[in-house]
Amino acid sequence: MSERVVLAYSGGLDTSVAIPYLAEQTGGEVIAVAVDVGQGGEDLDTIRKRALACGAAEAVVVDAREEFAADFCVPAMQANALYMDRYPLVSALSRPLIVKHLVAAAKEFGGTTVSHGCTGKGNDQVRFEAGLSALAPELKVIAPARDFAWTRDKAIAFAEDKGLPIDVSAKSPYSIDQNLWGRAVETGFLEDIWNGPIEDVYEYTADPAEPREADEVVITFAAGVPVALDGRPLTPYQVVAELNRRAGAQGVGRIDMVEDRLVGIKSREVYEAPAAIALMAAHMELENVTVERDLARFKRSVDQRWGELVYDGLWFSPLKESLDAFIADAQRHVSGEVRMTLHGGRAVVTGRRSAASLYSYDLATYDTGDAFDQSLAKGFVELWSLPSKIAAKRDRDLDV
Amino acid sequence: MSERVVLAYSGGLDTSVAIPYLAEQTGGEVIAVAVDVGQGGEDLDTIRKRALACGAAEAVVVDAREEFAADFCVPAMQANALYMDRYPLVSALSRPLIVKHLVAAAKEFGGTTVSHGCTGKGNDQVRFEAGLSALAPELKVIAPARDFAWTRDKAIAFAEDKGLPIDVSAKSPYSIDQNLWGRAVETGFLEDIWNGPIEDVYEYTADPAEPREADEVVITFAAGVPVALDGRPLTPYQVVAELNRRAGAQGVGRIDMVEDRLVGIKSREVYEAPAAIALMAAHMELENVTVERDLARFKRSVDQRWGELVYDGLWFSPLKESLDAFIADAQRHVSGEVRMTLHGGRAVVTGRRSAASLYSYDLATYDTGDAFDQSLAKGFVELWSLPSKIAAKRDRDLDV
Amino acid sequence: MSERVVLAYSGGLDTSVAIPYLAEQTGGEVIAVAVDVGQGGEDLDTIRKRALACGAAEAVVVDAREEFAADFCVPAMQANALYMDRYPLVSALSRPLIVKHLVAAAKEFGGTTVSHGCTGKGNDQVRFEAGLSALAPELKVIAPARDFAWTRDKAIAFAEDKGLPIDVSAKSPYSIDQNLWGRAVETGFLEDIWNGPIEDVYEYTADPAEPREADEVVITFAAGVPVALDGRPLTPYQVVAELNRRAGAQGVGRIDMVEDRLVGIKSREVYEAPAAIALMAAHMELENVTVERDLARFKRSVDQRWGELVYDGLWFSPLKESLDAFIADAQRHVSGEVRMTLHGGRAVVTGRRSAASLYSYDLATYDTGDAFDQSLAKGFVELWSLPSKIAAKRDRDLDV
Amino acid sequence: MSERVVLAYSGGLDTSVAIPYLAEQTGGEVIAVAVDVGQGGEDLDTIRKRALACGAAEAVVVDAREEFAADFCVPAMQANALYMDRYPLVSALSRPLIVKHLVAAAKEFGGTTVSHGCTGKGNDQVRFEAGLSALAPELKVIAPARDFAWTRDKAIAFAEDKGLPIDVSAKSPYSIDQNLWGRAVETGFLEDIWNGPIEDVYEYTADPAEPREADEVVITFAAGVPVALDGRPLTPYQVVAELNRRAGAQGVGRIDMVEDRLVGIKSREVYEAPAAIALMAAHMELENVTVERDLARFKRSVDQRWGELVYDGLWFSPLKESLDAFIADAQRHVSGEVRMTLHGGRAVVTGRRSAASLYSYDLATYDTGDAFDQSLAKGFVELWSLPSKIAAKRDRDLDV
Repeated sequence: MSERVVLAYSGGLDTSVAIPYLAEQTGGEVIAVAVDVGQGGEDLDTIRKRALACGAAEAVVVDAREEFAADFCVPAMQANALYMDRYPLVSALSRPLIVKHLVAAAKEFGGTTVSHGCTGKGNDQVRFEAGLSALAPELKVIAPARDFAWTRDKAIAFAEDKGLPIDVSAKSPYSIDQNLWGRAVETGFLEDIWNGPIEDVYEYTADPAEPREADEVVITFAAGVPVALDGRPLTPYQVVAELNRRAGAQGVGRIDMVEDRLVGIKSREVYEAPAAIALMAAHMELENVTVERDLARFKRSVDQRWGELVYDGLWFSPLKESLDAFIADAQRHVSGEVRMTLHGGRAVVTGRRSAASLYSYDLATYDTGDAFDQSLAKGFVELWSLPSKIAAKRDRDLDV
Repeated sequence: MSERVVLAYSGGLDTSVAIPYLAEQTGGEVIAVAVDVGQGGEDLDTIRKRALACGAAEAVVVDAREEFAADFCVPAMQANALYMDRYPLVSALSRPLIVKHLVAAAKEFGGTTVSHGCTGKGNDQVRFEAGLSALAPELKVIAPARDFAWTRDKAIAFAEDKGLPIDVSAKSPYSIDQNLWGRAVETGFLEDIWNGPIEDVYEYTADPAEPREADEVVITFAAGVPVALDGRPLTPYQVVAELNRRAGAQGVGRIDMVEDRLVGIKSREVYEAPAAIALMAAHMELENVTVERDLARFKRSVDQRWGELVYDGLWFSPLKESLDAFIADAQRHVSGEVRMTLHGGRAVVTGRRSAASLYSYDLATYDTGDAFDQSLAKGFVELWSLPSKIAAKRDRDLDV
Repeated sequence: MSERVVLAYSGGLDTSVAIPYLAEQTGGEVIAVAVDVGQGGEDLDTIRKRALACGAAEAVVVDAREEFAADFCVPAMQANALYMDRYPLVSALSRPLIVKHLVAAAKEFGGTTVSHGCTGKGNDQVRFEAGLSALAPELKVIAPARDFAWTRDKAIAFAEDKGLPIDVSAKSPYSIDQNLWGRAVETGFLEDIWNGPIEDVYEYTADPAEPREADEVVITFAAGVPVALDGRPLTPYQVVAELNRRAGAQGVGRIDMVEDRLVGIKSREVYEAPAAIALMAAHMELENVTVERDLARFKRSVDQRWGELVYDGLWFSPLKESLDAFIADAQRHVSGEVRMTLHGGRAVVTGRRSAASLYSYDLATYDTGDAFDQSLAKGFVELWSLPSKIAAKRDRDLDV
Repeated sequence: MSERVVLAYSGGLDTSVAIPYLAEQTGGEVIAVAVDVGQGGEDLDTIRKRALACGAAEAVVVDAREEFAADFCVPAMQANALYMDRYPLVSALSRPLIVKHLVAAAKEFGGTTVSHGCTGKGNDQVRFEAGLSALAPELKVIAPARDFAWTRDKAIAFAEDKGLPIDVSAKSPYSIDQNLWGRAVETGFLEDIWNGPIEDVYEYTADPAEPREADEVVITFAAGVPVALDGRPLTPYQVVAELNRRAGAQGVGRIDMVEDRLVGIKSREVYEAPAAIALMAAHMELENVTVERDLARFKRSVDQRWGELVYDGLWFSPLKESLDAFIADAQRHVSGEVRMTLHGGRAVVTGRRSAASLYSYDLATYDTGDAFDQSLAKGFVELWSLPSKIAAKRDRDLDV
């Protein structure tokens, strides 16, 4: 039986051309798999037909938006996952989900090889291949851009040569990856890191500098899951989609940074992630109210490691699972409401309330009703500072 | 010889009344020490005279603004010190500096006791007393608010009774601590954490929602120290003061959060820290450009611990010193320029350049001139994901 | 109704005398609660009768040995819990269990106050009272040694005065706490930290220097729980008890260290923990075989924090629960057998085998059958060291 | 000018044969560099002559024993560096030192390529090449075993074919790497991880089970550096060499473990490191006495990262430098004496004394003279456990 190559298919030029190219290179058949992770653009059926028109033996399309929101975006929010304190892991979250569906398609259609469009200097190749090696180590991998030095120019020439039904004229200066959780943009002029981004770069967010009315939203969380906006019950996908619209309209969630890639280089990245940034701000503040101090402090190191691990392509790894168990336990009481103002590029919490609150008015107030026994403090302060006191005395004694 | 009490003196009602009160309680003399950490307000000489008018045996005033900026604010910025990822440690930074000057005054004037105005349920009592126990463990401490249940109402009655030259009519609804690095506000209606702050709460920052022209600033850093704005060489104090004005005018640096106090309770805090927030954003991005990945990742845990430790009152502690040594080493190459737009409550980096940059255009570019050898990636990816792959295979084998 | 005081009762002089003393002090009744955590010594019925003879209104005895082994010792072993890399948390583990039973007795008998015999400079007061504040914050606490400066000499005088049926003549020079997990000894001459312990200090362990035959044991673990010795299925209690005998007979598990107490001082401690040390050595090695590298590395920081937290008295705390969730997940595959030689004070692993092993002979061997593709290494090494290489080049360029 | 290859030369069969082989492969000349890191065996002059006899254009021998002890072993001890809590980084420490001397030789003799004997599945290739990429990125690297699939059998055939003056008959079943800090052994029968090591495997250590007299040693440290044994001032090299003899004679320092290699596999390793294990035990205990609690706790995570980083080949890396700065600061007061019994495979501390001690008899004693104010404890305990108490109350309230 001939080789069957399962291709992560976007519907765009590069992966459309890859269909006949991979068939030619491998002497086999190509199964195109397109996964909707909320990236917008063409509908799935159009994409499916294009794959077939380009010669795919099978074309599979998957609406994975709810799955992506519930199983990938929500856990990232629970981990307050901001790589380098900034980047909400947009592409890093979608890759393991796409891998799941590639593997499922390989099982269904007898695929023996998987192909993706990533280059050899980015993070996404790692995310694809680490995921594949965990879920289906028996599958071979071909990355034409990396393994065959396949470029856009070659793709266009090949498409014209083969007469493929693809429009090769459209030329965006931007290299873009986008999904429900955000949008990543790279482009030549931003490779000079002294250059600032221009307004043209952005799509998910309006210009934060433009005057407009503020928007106020109340987000309801239940055990760390956002379950309603302004009192209306919604699925995680609906929450994220609506917040992308509303926070995006206020210019929330633009990020411009120099980032440490896993492959060892620094790169300039521009992101937009309105819902992700707004949701995480709300979630962090609800954690401030409902999570005990020592747990909150340690969770910061768990969160950091979770973000690094997922950025580094290790979604399907034993450490990720154990970190998830920690985080799931820590989310049990992260329930309540957060009121937030979206305006001028800012997503600012203005109120929070929770039946699981650890904030106690009686202990915190300086007004009548103060229940805190200040006489306890003296002993606390003395023993708290005793080790430093002994050490300082030692230092002075030795200096004499 | 009679007791001499060194009092941390602010010039306000509470500590003015404390002068005769402490003299009465201890049967001794009071040395008033006022330290200018950039809190603004009255000039030091006026404050000095008031202390004497209230009966102080000696009154010492210290302009510590440059010292505060250079030795306390800059290290906090180098540690990207944001307690709970939000609070730039405003009060936590000034307390150890004030302690230094209290101890110096105790030495100069034969003080045997130190007194401060903190209550028994806040963090500042710990910062004062932990600092004192490290620098001068032989000194006794009196905190009238905590130890004698001394309140504002009692202070006013005492002032009127003694005919002290103090205006007792002014009644602010706010409890405020402010210095060069920021401003902290507590007040009754914010103790309901569902209430949002009102505009009246703020002084360091203009309303970010009001339309105005953006401000652009270029900050120059040398080995982690901000040394110039827009090309003009400045001291650290001058940098922070100017950024407070410029970023404050744009509404940058407002913070509203529920916070974990060291004494074990959660409290609602509102802060303004325009310069701190702007400087830290610039500094973090310059670290992104000049600090190697593994160092940057580990430094996050060092930074977090530094912030917790200083928040928790342990500025003068052995761990703080060793963390400082780590951070100082990590700052050696944090030199260069960051361009930043201050506008609408946002401080956004738009450009960065550095002779010590680790960003390599040749390695990062996807254009002609790409120097990255993509053929290396295959082996990297396979070995990187090998442990997860082996574990995933084990898991599947056991499930059978 | 009169006060009812629930007393943590050991059967020894101090707590026997405390029965009438507490009754006198509080004008109430005393409920004596003795918990068997494997400390050996008198049988529970004898202890119960003595409590009543000393005037207790009720006397409760609980055989908690299986509970202690399964719910306290095994989790400690799973966390490889060695405070300061040495101390297996002997006393720190029994206190929360005793607290549980004190609270249960208070509920059953209408107790309103709990009393324990700890001093004010040790860790155990914190463990008792932190546990109580979590499980039953409504209960008051009396610690006579700390709160009433109650001493052994006063206890003896009181016992003689009241004619209590207690032998006050026995005077051990040692202060001892012991249970199934180990034994802690403090004594005057060891307070000079240059003095070495003498043989007389030890009870759980024979002199390791004496010649004897080695003992070999095979320990079977299932999901991180020791379930058999030499193929004989045993409960956790039985495993620990047998290993205490066998490893103790070989002198395994003596510890002599200077330790950081939670109350801020350093103290000299001598411990014996034959089973704990042997089990942890076996467990760690089985983790080496069955736990993936990144998980193992991060688990070290989880384990350290778990040990600190439990040492610090916070067994019943939110962070402890979330760390437990992490550890439980990480133990899922820690199953298999470890062969160990117990001899001359050493517990040395000599073999390990597991159906869940991640060790692959085919990948590890240098003999025929090597399945590792060495050609992958070149790319891995180059990208692995790329960030350091770029930084080193930067450093050199700047030095010119 | 022809290629000049700088070869890391051991004097053994493989690297001797590599001299003519590399010359043949590259058409260039070979510079043999042998570095004495305390591995024992033949003298350096014999090795130098053999290199020349095998055709080396130049042969350099370096006695780096003092440098190795002072700059590599002592820092490892200061970091208490035990990879996976067991392995004292024997080979990982020598590789960066050898790299330094290879680079120096390349500069002196115009070398353009460096060659080492490591395979493609071990850690040492990474340590060599990561070091080279940091110190001399312009040098090419050839690893014949990895890059040319060069094996021992091929080497023997080549040697016989060329008539090289090498004894090819000696065939050890063991693959060994040894230096001053320890000895690593791999061999076929240990690749079955259920097999125990046999006595024949060991060379640095006598059988710990054999009866003999105990040895007692007093080690003096100054700021974290071992400077004397039994009162005799010694260099670091002399300290380590003498402790290898004395602790080795008592069977101290045998290690048998399954280890996580950087290249992603687990391997079985047997080590002997008598001096390393004894010195680290002494050093850790002196840290217990002289290092403040919070610093000691955080240093554990620094130590762990240091060990991982060095194991992973990143000696010459920015993070390593900053960790060194932390550790150096933490060692300032690690001065004093530790008395230790070496016997029966155990290195046990029995006494410690230090002018920089933080242990205070007055605070620790339970005898007359106790200076600890127990009345402080009540307030401390209450505030210490307050967050857990509030959380426990919340949990109960929610359960109702």
